[in-house]
Amino acid sequence: MKTEGEIGKPLPRIDALEKATGVASFTTDLKLPGMLHAKVLRSPYPHARIVSIDTAEAEKLPGVRAVATYENTTECCFNSSCSEANPPAVPVEDEQIFNRELRYVGDEVAAVAADTEETAKRALELIRVEYEELPAVFDPLEALKPDAPAVHPCFIGNNIAGMAKLPMGDLEKGFAESDIILEEQFKLPVVKHCQLETQAAVADYSASGHLTVWSTTQSPHPLKNLLAKLFGMPASRVRVLNPPYIGGAFGSHVGMSGKAEPIAAALAMLAGKPVRFVYDRKEDFIASTTRHSGYITVKLGAKRDGSFQALYLNAVLNTGGYANAGPDVTAVLGVTNISIYQIPNVFYDGLCVYTNTTTAGAMRGFGNPQGNFAVESTVDMMAERLGMDPMELRLKNTMTPYAPWLPPYPCATCGLAECMEKGAQKIGWADRDSLLKNPGHGKVRGIGMAAGTHVSNSWPFAVEFDNAYLAVMEDGSANLAVGVPDMGQGIATTLSQVAASSLGIPMDQVSIVFGDTASTPYDIGSHASRTLYSAGTAVEAAGRDAKQKILEFAAEQLKTEPETLTLENGMILADGEPRMTMGEAAHLIHRANRQIIGIGQTVPFNAPPWHAHFAEVEVDMETGQIEVLHLAAAHDVGRAINPDIVEGQIHGSVLQGIGYALSEQIVYDKKGRQAQDSFHKYYLPTMLETPDIDVILVETNEPSGPFGAKGVGECGLVPTAAAIANAVYHATGIRFHEIPITEEKMLDAIKKKEKE
Amino acid sequence: MKTEGEIGKPLPRIDALEKATGVASFTTDLKLPGMLHAKVLRSPYPHARIVSIDTAEAEKLPGVRAVATYENTTECCFNSSCSEANPPAVPVEDEQIFNRELRYVGDEVAAVAADTEETAKRALELIRVEYEELPAVFDPLEALKPDAPAVHPCFIGNNIAGMAKLPMGDLEKGFAESDIILEEQFKLPVVKHCQLETQAAVADYSASGHLTVWSTTQSPHPLKNLLAKLFGMPASRVRVLNPPYIGGAFGSHVGMSGKAEPIAAALAMLAGKPVRFVYDRKEDFIASTTRHSGYITVKLGAKRDGSFQALYLNAVLNTGGYANAGPDVTAVLGVTNISIYQIPNVFYDGLCVYTNTTTAGAMRGFGNPQGNFAVESTVDMMAERLGMDPMELRLKNTMTPYAPWLPPYPCATCGLAECMEKGAQKIGWADRDSLLKNPGHGKVRGIGMAAGTHVSNSWPFAVEFDNAYLAVMEDGSANLAVGVPDMGQGIATTLSQVAASSLGIPMDQVSIVFGDTASTPYDIGSHASRTLYSAGTAVEAAGRDAKQKILEFAAEQLKTEPETLTLENGMILADGEPRMTMGEAAHLIHRANRQIIGIGQTVPFNAPPWHAHFAEVEVDMETGQIEVLHLAAAHDVGRAINPDIVEGQIHGSVLQGIGYALSEQIVYDKKGRQAQDSFHKYYLPTMLETPDIDVILVETNEPSGPFGAKGVGECGLVPTAAAIANAVYHATGIRFHEIPITEEKMLDAIKKKEKE
Repeated sequence: MKTEGEIGKPLPRIDALEKATGVASFTTDLKLPGMLHAKVLRSPYPHARIVSIDTAEAEKLPGVRAVATYENTTECCFNSSCSEANPPAVPVEDEQIFNRELRYVGDEVAAVAADTEETAKRALELIRVEYEELPAVFDPLEALKPDAPAVHPCFIGNNIAGMAKLPMGDLEKGFAESDIILEEQFKLPVVKHCQLETQAAVADYSASGHLTVWSTTQSPHPLKNLLAKLFGMPASRVRVLNPPYIGGAFGSHVGMSGKAEPIAAALAMLAGKPVRFVYDRKEDFIASTTRHSGYITVKLGAKRDGSFQALYLNAVLNTGGYANAGPDVTAVLGVTNISIYQIPNVFYDGLCVYTNTTTAGAMRGFGNPQGNFAVESTVDMMAERLGMDPMELRLKNTMTPYAPWLPPYPCATCGLAECMEKGAQKIGWADRDSLLKNPGHGKVRGIGMAAGTHVSNSWPFAVEFDNAYLAVMEDGSANLAVGVPDMGQGIATTLSQVAASSLGIPMDQVSIVFGDTASTPYDIGSHASRTLYSAGTAVEAAGRDAKQKILEFAAEQLKTEPETLTLENGMILADGEPRMTMGEAAHLIHRANRQIIGIGQTVPFNAPPWHAHFAEVEVDMETGQIEVLHLAAAHDVGRAINPDIVEGQIHGSVLQGIGYALSEQIVYDKKGRQAQDSFHKYYLPTMLETPDIDVILVETNEPSGPFGAKGVGECGLVPTAAAIANAVYHATGIRFHEIPITEEKMLDAIKKKEKE
Repeated sequence: MKTEGEIGKPLPRIDALEKATGVASFTTDLKLPGMLHAKVLRSPYPHARIVSIDTAEAEKLPGVRAVATYENTTECCFNSSCSEANPPAVPVEDEQIFNRELRYVGDEVAAVAADTEETAKRALELIRVEYEELPAVFDPLEALKPDAPAVHPCFIGNNIAGMAKLPMGDLEKGFAESDIILEEQFKLPVVKHCQLETQAAVADYSASGHLTVWSTTQSPHPLKNLLAKLFGMPASRVRVLNPPYIGGAFGSHVGMSGKAEPIAAALAMLAGKPVRFVYDRKEDFIASTTRHSGYITVKLGAKRDGSFQALYLNAVLNTGGYANAGPDVTAVLGVTNISIYQIPNVFYDGLCVYTNTTTAGAMRGFGNPQGNFAVESTVDMMAERLGMDPMELRLKNTMTPYAPWLPPYPCATCGLAECMEKGAQKIGWADRDSLLKNPGHGKVRGIGMAAGTHVSNSWPFAVEFDNAYLAVMEDGSANLAVGVPDMGQGIATTLSQVAASSLGIPMDQVSIVFGDTASTPYDIGSHASRTLYSAGTAVEAAGRDAKQKILEFAAEQLKTEPETLTLENGMILADGEPRMTMGEAAHLIHRANRQIIGIGQTVPFNAPPWHAHFAEVEVDMETGQIEVLHLAAAHDVGRAINPDIVEGQIHGSVLQGIGYALSEQIVYDKKGRQAQDSFHKYYLPTMLETPDIDVILVETNEPSGPFGAKGVGECGLVPTAAAIANAVYHATGIRFHEIPITEEKMLDAIKKKEKE
């Protein structure tokens, strides 16, 4: 990889030492003078109406400072993901801090703030609630039936929270011209983010009427606006900030962190004291957003030569009790999965459906992993039907730059073919059929692959812009202020590299302020793999702006034209000759009564990252256990600003993909209760399940991205499940239409196959 | 007073409720996890060299985490006032964190950080220091003698830390053409600021190499630069902030707060833990800056008609052990006191002299009160010699706009005559000689006056510029970020009014971030009566910039030209007709993917505020007690942005002026020890000494100031002592050439006069 300033260097993360030594500060670490602790009473029913609620006994308990219910909090309706979807989508505002009608087991009924957590817990037991149980529905296909219980009143059909219809070409004609048509149905599970830090907020309402909320949110600025609206305050009086670290998020804290922020804020206002509210792990599992489960149908038509003619993709996603990001997720599932290949005739039909399960929302991949599992399993089956090598089939149809496609922005760069070729080489694809398929001990091995694409941003699907300040100090160092949070992905480091390189100074001269609405300009938050791609454009612009101003000043000093000057690594050069250090220039500017402030204000574009994953698995035919031995993950990231951080992102998301493929799921019992509500019951991959992961970075230099970068944060999760399922098929000849492929399912299928 | 937006309205201070309810946070309130407490060992000698220092026993004491001395801290020399004087002045950098040679009783020798304050104190007793005593000098006239001990080696004469020579016209000719020439000598005492909160800092040095210092500083940004230089770090890695409040300052925290910041920082780096260092009151008295004491000679020549012909002003100021702001104070004394009247021939000759007393530095008025007492006492004497009414004499000579004068900027506005006329009316000047001069009980009464001027800024005497961000929120409210601290003067409120009015929204829609180097652009700090005048220009510019951008957007929406639109009180009007609210416009801008950010970057000018004080006093001829009965303070403030805050500033500074005139002083014994080192020994005026204070605001709409405002923060102190001394003369016929006029001095003088 070519470096350019600090771009392309695997520099250590600026938060590494603080995190390694345990002194980094997270929301749960905060202690304010007089701070109270909050606990929440949650619905025991999947669907019920509150008939009456009596908090008198709870309020009498010594140490209880405030009890909040729907009776003393705002009626204002909102969408806790802070969705600002653009037309034709519309943000669905169907939640209240405390809903009058409860729509899943765990829905918020009341909250208590007390001197200690123990007192708050005891107070919950003293709240008397009379519920009227209502009929419930848990499956989205059931919920669509005309006689299903209505989770919400909906205008466009029973329990439909949102829909997306994306047409291109003539689907009927496409299928008519196809030689082979496959139609497959897939079922996807509910899974959870399992970020280390649960939803947390500390709220302080000052005597002067300013609300400050420290929290785990991934979107401080949009949340600031939402809290202002909820509490009827000017947005400038609300400050939302990360403290500054977040212990992971993966989408679970897009907008609100569960309801940690509004509940802490409401209690702080009622009690007149700061309030801390930290979800316990059970609350995280049952009462914060999940990945959307659902049903996906893929109908794919191809000619005998392998050229795809038509793709019909249908998704019915279960968004649970509230819409949250569901309509947006439904759209992204379609946009991403009809865009991997050049197919002249496509149609995506997505439905987002309410049920009485935990609300689903944003989770790394945002619908894409669901669709990818379905589409890439089907492509694998098509290859078999065509008698073609699965990679050959994919290469034949792969997207190329500026080919027609459905997204409302061009595909300017596409390294998918290169990803496939390099990944194939790494995994030994060419020899996969001569692979030692039977290593003994009743085990079989196989290699599978899957390809995918994603977005780098939410533009133009939602409100999308970014801003950055880059203030140059008297000594030539610089302070970057940008509104994004760093939820653990290392963005503070990467954006500092962008700032340093754009301005032309070394990385150690840049400091960064982030995740604080009071000290940074607006940013829509960290999600959609957008943070580097999108905020990076504003940071790069701010750096360029500052550099230009410095060179103009230096040109005056050096009696030359700014165009003849460059600023590199802290040195101003004229025609390549060092003339003045940045520190000297900055000091002179300071003494000339001026601070150089670079301003970046951008409306970032969008661009597709590309990825091909290759998995080698070993299946124990006696136990059904599946082990991923090796995973080669080739990614077109546009440009790797910090290769170590990019690799880290891909490693983590591959692991989440392995869990998605093989072990993770939440199921509901007949009373709508979540069977998995702890790490003991929910099977995350551990180090034991971690394969050798080879990350291959492909650089295509996306013209719309900062220094050529595209999104990467979510991508490693996207094709992992399909690659593994395809490898399982390669090893065993057994095709799964449902994940996770647990040991039980695998063993059942092996037995079933043996009987055939 | 005419209002304009929120300008001219006596709005409540935004910090009022927090301060009244006791929840406002000051440096001394901060508690960080693992925080240590610091104590300092101070020199018992006025002048000594450290021969050896042994900290071994102190380090062994359980609970001691670090001991700092000159042996393990930087040798780097600095000026703790962060002076950035422009040529011909030069910042004198004559201090180190721990000086090898000690130059006053209280100079820092060593510092200890320990788990508790008690342990730190005990550790100080275990530090063994061998001192070599050196000859000391305490009086600046003595210090100038060739054989005086050298406090510092100086190039331009013995113990001269700085000088100012300001000539205009032909002095010799001026005196030659004068009919009457008076030459008077005056002596000024050492006094202290007596701000409520002592010097305090909490320093945290992070694992990632970032230094954060919360402190009482009046100049966060310059101090950030200085700390970076001291500790060899990029300035962007140092963050200095107020937390956010300061319990008063009055100049005592210009730059460093004593040495609280560097000592806390050095200890934090040595100990690897956060360190809190809060001066006790004794340390505040003996080891933080004082007002300059000294000697002033005034030679004034006038024609018989009262027209002043020549003024020679000579000041010898005692800056104590280190230069600090002394050279700057010396210059300001001259600039301000030769500019009250139109005098064709003037010469100011100022010397700033080292002695072995506590370092003198910035204190409200910055040299001006010293000079004013001398000049305005002399003018009073001249009136008597001429047989003229003192006000008549002053009115005859008063400065007028654009008249020739010495400061390097024009006098664009001058309300001094109006101040005199309105103040005179309020005090009953016309009847002063028919006043009940003998109210009985051995008491006599008199009325005196004094006039003065000041600066509104430090331009062009020092590096001077200002910046502001004004970020408009999605709902049309706005967040102002500006680098000034609010040390209690209410500037956060006043600047919010400027922002609101400049942008065109109501005050309650504006929030403000201040006193934090990480989240605000550069500002040189709060001093020189500059904060509103100077930062206000940047805030006003930022508001205009944001307004212009909003009106451009609105014009597009309304299909008109921006010039036809105005934005007032949150409403966009076309030709005076309401068309769109600010909230609507801001929301549309947000949905159009944009944040409006107003940027203000200014090099503020300078402008003279004007003031005339009239005091009525009652002298008890039997005890010598002097009571100020009534004080009328008329001030040309340009424009009173918030009249209540302006009045508050004047009330407070008048009180300090009364203390200066009558009771406050620190004297040194023969061993250089401060006799007054507590509020028990140092006589501040209390409520009992507070007269009726009438504030009269005169508005001249200074064109260079924000909405016409000029400086006001220091002005109430300037002419108070002279007005009182002149009133004492009017009452008793006794003229004092020295303040404070204590009961003892008054009684001695009465007795002496009775003997004559």
